[in-house]
Amino acid sequence: MSEARVLVLDADPLPRLERLTGRAVVRHSDEQSLARLLPDADVLLVWDFTSDAVREAWPGPGARPRWVHTASAGVDRLLFPELLASDTVLTNARGVFDRPIAEYVAGLVLAMAKDFRHSWNVQRERRWQHRETEKVFGSRAVVVGSGPIGRRIGTTLRALGVTVDLVGRTAREADADFGRVHAGGDLPALLPTADWVVCAAPLTPQTEGMFDAAAFALMKPTARFLNVGRGGHVVEDDLVAALRAGRLAGAALDVFAEEPLPADSPLWDLPELIVSPHMSGDTHGWRDDLADQFQDNFDRWLAGEPLANVVDKRLGYVPAEG
Amino acid sequence: MSEARVLVLDADPLPRLERLTGRAVVRHSDEQSLARLLPDADVLLVWDFTSDAVREAWPGPGARPRWVHTASAGVDRLLFPELLASDTVLTNARGVFDRPIAEYVAGLVLAMAKDFRHSWNVQRERRWQHRETEKVFGSRAVVVGSGPIGRRIGTTLRALGVTVDLVGRTAREADADFGRVHAGGDLPALLPTADWVVCAAPLTPQTEGMFDAAAFALMKPTARFLNVGRGGHVVEDDLVAALRAGRLAGAALDVFAEEPLPADSPLWDLPELIVSPHMSGDTHGWRDDLADQFQDNFDRWLAGEPLANVVDKRLGYVPAEG
Repeated sequence: MSEARVLVLDADPLPRLERLTGRAVVRHSDEQSLARLLPDADVLLVWDFTSDAVREAWPGPGARPRWVHTASAGVDRLLFPELLASDTVLTNARGVFDRPIAEYVAGLVLAMAKDFRHSWNVQRERRWQHRETEKVFGSRAVVVGSGPIGRRIGTTLRALGVTVDLVGRTAREADADFGRVHAGGDLPALLPTADWVVCAAPLTPQTEGMFDAAAFALMKPTARFLNVGRGGHVVEDDLVAALRAGRLAGAALDVFAEEPLPADSPLWDLPELIVSPHMSGDTHGWRDDLADQFQDNFDRWLAGEPLANVVDKRLGYVPAEG
Repeated sequence: MSEARVLVLDADPLPRLERLTGRAVVRHSDEQSLARLLPDADVLLVWDFTSDAVREAWPGPGARPRWVHTASAGVDRLLFPELLASDTVLTNARGVFDRPIAEYVAGLVLAMAKDFRHSWNVQRERRWQHRETEKVFGSRAVVVGSGPIGRRIGTTLRALGVTVDLVGRTAREADADFGRVHAGGDLPALLPTADWVVCAAPLTPQTEGMFDAAAFALMKPTARFLNVGRGGHVVEDDLVAALRAGRLAGAALDVFAEEPLPADSPLWDLPELIVSPHMSGDTHGWRDDLADQFQDNFDRWLAGEPLANVVDKRLGYVPAEG
């Protein structure tokens, strides 16, 4: 077998792919040269997972990569009709971000309950201002997204004494971790019960814009909304309106319709909105973890074994085993 | 039996003691009138647990309250020689603050690992500044204090994937929750191993000033120190010096040698120090929880039953059962 031709859609810093040495010809591409280089690639590593260039550069009839791997959990940018219709296999970074994102969400929940932001503001003013804060133990959360990230968020919150309802695409009884997993259609009945609503779903046509004025209106005025999914899950104007009207007590967004969030966005300085720059899953070493995961899958590919983390392109995510 | 005479050393707001109606004569005192009223009291409720007035007002030979209850976990302000030598029973608020403080500590740990303070600072500047943060899972903590607060902190951190060493006064094998509880003398060997050092100990002559330059020098330069015990556990100047010299990565203090922290204290604006106004345990309803706990004990007292949460005055805390 001739050496595999691996094309990397670059982002800075580049992936460390030492284990491919001598086993693959690795070429690097930016967005501009992708259309030219793609027909010669066996494998495309979408290292710049924020790019929409793959869709634009995808070859017409004829040669195309047989395998596309994206260094992200979400594959929404790759669910375009030509890739869906092709027999190209799509894999993702399922597993790398579960614990980091769950820790990030748990931290936000605790920080909001304990009012850290206010404390740190008055610390800057050298003011001693004792307040009472909220118990997290005994509160209720609805976590939307029953993939590994949503599940890990759920079990982490549960370890803090939070009662968690997990919502997936379809209902499931006798789930090993949660007993019952609710269907998306159950969400209107669940939202009014929640102190915390966490979005960790894949972005698909079914979930796009699901957090809109109607959804926020169903939440308790004391509830808080957290999004670590994709910006497209939220109708941002509706969230701004709900927060301004006090129909919702607070929110934390790590993802946005447009990233980086434009400097003139009203989201930056709503008092009860925490903004972070799409970093909830990015702990030290995450890029090496992502490169390792790709190289592990490359080993399987060379050996002719089934790839890990194969995305069901109709669903838009990797289905659960079993 | 004539009605019990309960004296309350007041703090604002006053305790709700409805359940004492018809069963006790409740009088209220400020610091100034305490010396005059104390000899007539059967029971003293130290509602203002930040006051040192009990020590000053304690009666000489003769009448004194038979029972003193403090609405705090720490009893350090009440461990003066005359009360120690008396047969007055001392009880405390053991149990009310365990979960709230453990949540507060877990929130601080996650907030420091995820660099929330920096994120919120750049949010105010409308700047999108992606960074990598720390994993909490897989880190190590040393928790000093093996009472219910320290134990709950330990189990809560452990639920986040942190390896926890718990340090008490004396070593203990086969502890139900932690396997081994370390003795205070083991601390120098443990400090170099910890990413997180949490003080939740009672303040006693043995623990006073235990976090000094020598202790900070043993910690990793990447470690962070959290104090939810008492201000007296920490030599504050030594902590300031360690933080300024970068010998310690960060700290969070909820308690201080002088409270409220004076406006001119250097602690307010060290970049890597989080200051909060002695509120880690104070969740909504905490005062009612404290009043209920006292009234439950008053029921026992009237019935001639053993009181709950009796402090071992030689040790300075309520010893563990069994």
